[in-house]
Amino acid sequence: MAFEGVIILGLDPSLSSTGWGVIRSEGARISHVANGQIKTDPSAPMAQRLAALQAELAEVIAAHQPARAAAEEIFVNKNPQSTLKLAQARGAVLAACGAAGLTVNEHAARLVKKAVTGTGAAEKVQVAAMVKVLLPGVAITGSDAADALAVAIADAHLAPRS
Amino acid sequence: MAFEGVIILGLDPSLSSTGWGVIRSEGARISHVANGQIKTDPSAPMAQRLAALQAELAEVIAAHQPARAAAEEIFVNKNPQSTLKLAQARGAVLAACGAAGLTVNEHAARLVKKAVTGTGAAEKVQVAAMVKVLLPGVAITGSDAADALAVAIADAHLAPRS
Repeated sequence: MAFEGVIILGLDPSLSSTGWGVIRSEGARISHVANGQIKTDPSAPMAQRLAALQAELAEVIAAHQPARAAAEEIFVNKNPQSTLKLAQARGAVLAACGAAGLTVNEHAARLVKKAVTGTGAAEKVQVAAMVKVLLPGVAITGSDAADALAVAIADAHLAPRS
Repeated sequence: MAFEGVIILGLDPSLSSTGWGVIRSEGARISHVANGQIKTDPSAPMAQRLAALQAELAEVIAAHQPARAAAEEIFVNKNPQSTLKLAQARGAVLAACGAAGLTVNEHAARLVKKAVTGTGAAEKVQVAAMVKVLLPGVAITGSDAADALAVAIADAHLAPRS
């Protein structure tokens, strides 16, 4: 079998909608593999939502067999309650990656934006537009999936291990 | 088989040392079943630590077959970075419970202290002392396990479902 590069899973964790994006990186070239968003039932208890999130993510990992994963670094934002929810979802996401034997590279949001658009101050919409340019023909599931693809692209540049 | 009450798993999640405590609650009586602390390797990456935490907790759940779990509510404390670590560990812990089909009751720290000691302003050492009084003969693994037993005891009082 020919060398086909390294498969990278980008993740944008959140309780309500975790974005994921899988790309293939081969030298200086990247290409799109798949992307999606994992939504959990807002009426379910937290433990059940987190378990469902992990189960779906485990399926994504099993289907695409990435060599590594990547996510943006987390920080405490203005709303402490939403930060806590986000951090708990992120913990479940990282644990699912760890259980699958994946390393999860963490990148500062500014560096992800810079890697994708050339500027660390890019707007969300600019990032999504550049993701489409960099992955020709990609059909992006939603803004969380776009963010996840951006992290995967950044990881291909920032942490090349292929 | 005679009715043996309900088994409750109390949890005190943290990345470095998650306390767990299992008690049996039967009407107004409670008794100790087991307690321990799950430590993760500080030199390992976050994803691997969280996965290890989940794997060990899954073993505890499988061994003791609790009917439900309980943990203190989380809040943002003075140190945002440690809060983020704590919340991510908590997410992994809750997800493991959810995957095992457990409901996780959440109780305010003040109500846990009040249920165990009679006052919501009790010091940590008073809580641990009362846990020993309420569970005669218990050998407590450490302060995280003591906190976990306290949550289990509080849950037996605050959320009786047996």
